[in-house]
Amino acid sequence: MQDTSFTLLTDLYQITMAYGYWKTGMAERPAVFHLFYRKNPFGNPYAIAGGLERAISWLNALRFSAGDVQYLGSLKGADGKALFDESFLNYLQRLRFSCDLDAIPEGTVVLPNEPLIRVQGPLLQAQFIETALLNLINFSTLIATKSARVVQAAGEDAVLEFGLRRAQGMDGGLSASRAAYIGGCSATSNVLAGKHFGIPVRGTHAHSWVMCFENEPEAFDTYAAAMPNNCIFLVDTYNTLEGVQHAITSAQKLKARGHKLLGIRLDSGDLAALSIAARNMLDDADLPEVAIVASDDLDEHRIAELKRQGSKINVWGVGTRLVTAYDQPALGGVYKLAAIQDTAGQWQHKIKLSEQPIKVSNPGIQDVVRFFDANGRPLADAITSANFEGDTLEIVDEKSGGSVHFDAKQGKSLLVPVYRKGVLVYEVPNIHETRKYCLAQQALFRDVDWKTYAFGLERGVFALKQELISVYRGV
Amino acid sequence: MQDTSFTLLTDLYQITMAYGYWKTGMAERPAVFHLFYRKNPFGNPYAIAGGLERAISWLNALRFSAGDVQYLGSLKGADGKALFDESFLNYLQRLRFSCDLDAIPEGTVVLPNEPLIRVQGPLLQAQFIETALLNLINFSTLIATKSARVVQAAGEDAVLEFGLRRAQGMDGGLSASRAAYIGGCSATSNVLAGKHFGIPVRGTHAHSWVMCFENEPEAFDTYAAAMPNNCIFLVDTYNTLEGVQHAITSAQKLKARGHKLLGIRLDSGDLAALSIAARNMLDDADLPEVAIVASDDLDEHRIAELKRQGSKINVWGVGTRLVTAYDQPALGGVYKLAAIQDTAGQWQHKIKLSEQPIKVSNPGIQDVVRFFDANGRPLADAITSANFEGDTLEIVDEKSGGSVHFDAKQGKSLLVPVYRKGVLVYEVPNIHETRKYCLAQQALFRDVDWKTYAFGLERGVFALKQELISVYRGV
Repeated sequence: MQDTSFTLLTDLYQITMAYGYWKTGMAERPAVFHLFYRKNPFGNPYAIAGGLERAISWLNALRFSAGDVQYLGSLKGADGKALFDESFLNYLQRLRFSCDLDAIPEGTVVLPNEPLIRVQGPLLQAQFIETALLNLINFSTLIATKSARVVQAAGEDAVLEFGLRRAQGMDGGLSASRAAYIGGCSATSNVLAGKHFGIPVRGTHAHSWVMCFENEPEAFDTYAAAMPNNCIFLVDTYNTLEGVQHAITSAQKLKARGHKLLGIRLDSGDLAALSIAARNMLDDADLPEVAIVASDDLDEHRIAELKRQGSKINVWGVGTRLVTAYDQPALGGVYKLAAIQDTAGQWQHKIKLSEQPIKVSNPGIQDVVRFFDANGRPLADAITSANFEGDTLEIVDEKSGGSVHFDAKQGKSLLVPVYRKGVLVYEVPNIHETRKYCLAQQALFRDVDWKTYAFGLERGVFALKQELISVYRGV
Repeated sequence: MQDTSFTLLTDLYQITMAYGYWKTGMAERPAVFHLFYRKNPFGNPYAIAGGLERAISWLNALRFSAGDVQYLGSLKGADGKALFDESFLNYLQRLRFSCDLDAIPEGTVVLPNEPLIRVQGPLLQAQFIETALLNLINFSTLIATKSARVVQAAGEDAVLEFGLRRAQGMDGGLSASRAAYIGGCSATSNVLAGKHFGIPVRGTHAHSWVMCFENEPEAFDTYAAAMPNNCIFLVDTYNTLEGVQHAITSAQKLKARGHKLLGIRLDSGDLAALSIAARNMLDDADLPEVAIVASDDLDEHRIAELKRQGSKINVWGVGTRLVTAYDQPALGGVYKLAAIQDTAGQWQHKIKLSEQPIKVSNPGIQDVVRFFDANGRPLADAITSANFEGDTLEIVDEKSGGSVHFDAKQGKSLLVPVYRKGVLVYEVPNIHETRKYCLAQQALFRDVDWKTYAFGLERGVFALKQELISVYRGV
């Protein structure tokens, strides 16, 4: 790579629009955009907000480098002439991020249409950051949510994330390991993720280790001699239950030397039956402390099924299906203009229409308010106006038209300030704290009855939306 | 990030195995590994090899930095003691890649079990590079194959890749744009991919551009004034056919000024019906040159369906479902030990068994040979021994046991030398040449009758495999 700038991690139309706004004198016009998704992934009742740290890392480095500008200057239009003129490129090179940005902290339980991020600032900038924000927030939110599902299926057992080799590119691995940890995984196999994010790393050996030796007992003994404090034997290279027997023999030698075998790993076959047989063999050999780790295209459904079958697996190694979110590999998050100031400095609220009601955007500068009962249990979420005032907040169900009322003072805004005029004002929490917070959020929402959970637009936002729909549809 | 080394983009077990090999004096033992996949993705009759340039880029930078080694030195085993000792870490820091590596060039049509990459070199190194190779080759091969399917469905029409915002992380976007272009897409919206890989970039404006103005005609006219040489109007912000009418009015003004509207873009609704109506409106307005671009969760199936419905779409914008390979978001490529020298310097061939026949690996140092008829049409692929000699090559069908014979001289090896003793000896082709080559490969295989295409193990490799299965199963 010519230089290390990631500023051009964007769609070309962000730059052509920037050019249009700059040329027509609209670049500095204050505008507000929200980032949200429309539908919970995987049929889950909620998503886990993820990726804010990734977004901050990109925003902090947001500068058009000399190489970026040189590249943009080389682009040609249909007539063979330069797409952008020189003074625009100079403007870009001088540009410094100066927006306000608010976000829902990573690890929080969130619902459809809630602004995970709200950006307020000069139109050109607030628009430009769309693609990178979507890329980074969509993927991390997707994987944190998938991880939460897997971790919930595993119950008290640890889940290890093993997905790097099947991930979608380098960062598909790196960001996935980070999001999976936040969602509740205990560790990753990804060493780079361990180095950069401080996530615990785990791993012992592959089939190829066993294949490099004359036979399996020699392979296990050699491994144990080399690394007595990190032994989990993979037992299915040739025959799984023979492998378990060989692991037991090695474990007993290891025990005699004052160490212990941490576990055996099953990677193929009937994992329920094999784990039950292996558990019996280990217990009979007086090795109850040896854990049974399993891997092999696992996900939350397979883990639940194996548990129903009475499997004796203690640790779940989950790879491909977690880091690619195999059953739904993209979150359809979007980033929509909700308000822009006119030349007189008045906010004009904006809406994007669609024949599909789910695709009609919510107008106005928004906040998300969550209500709790006296015991701290969540009761309701409202998408409100950011400057909502009043004692009572009415949440409207857009489908039924029905509504419920809450004491406004008992609501808590989910958005926190992240940037003020381009200055980072948010301290990114330590990743271990974020994981703990996320597990606490999952526990908090465990017993929620989603059928009765109130969730929708505050009456004022609802009315504004109806009004704008009428205006634009010419009703 | 503390430093820019990507060397630790690996699973921890690669490093614990490396430690084991180093400690037991096996680190330098010559070994051979093959990277291959077992099943074609998406039900396609083949895959498109991808990612070699990405792998070379990683291998060229393969060095354990001071930060890498410091991090590894901080890892602890179950007893709280360091996982790796100091002299091993010093060994890693001095390590330089010194393997031979052969690969099938990017853009080539490939089949299951064919080594896409063959690595021969010191055991420790050849093993260590597994995870990164799998990560990089798996993903690019998957996306290049998906791209080929989409491009084939689009026939003569151009396909633009628009996936960055829903891609799996930054590199999920960057590498996907590259692989999609190789597979046959004409351009990308991803500016960073354009800058780094020289891929053509395309894009004009979003719904938010339209929403920033009082009305749609003003939005289109302003855009056309700012950028007359790059105009495609997105027409569905409020009402699609009204949008087309507004685009026509702006196009006529643009035409009067000596420019032309390149196209209109449909992004929602009944794309077949809307495109037919829009085409009629454009033609009636004497604008037959204005193209109709469509987007909205497209993939090869939806494109084929829209073509069956008589849609008048000329350019297909394909995003999420291409860059995430939505219907199969991971290729299950694996990397298996196939041979290792014993202490006497004799090659020992290796096999990984499994209860599932598809998971039993092929032993020995392999090559892939492709046979053609007198007209250059491909007839057969054989997985042979790298040092196969003989006039006639017999390909065995593992399932039926039947076989066919070919004149060995008429076979062509698909593997090319990439590294010799760690030195890059391969010139990575220009990306445009690779794309052309890939489109030619797709054309070459278009009329292949896959039911009769011979494909399997050369008799010698087949016999070796049967022999090793008997040995390890104790038959």
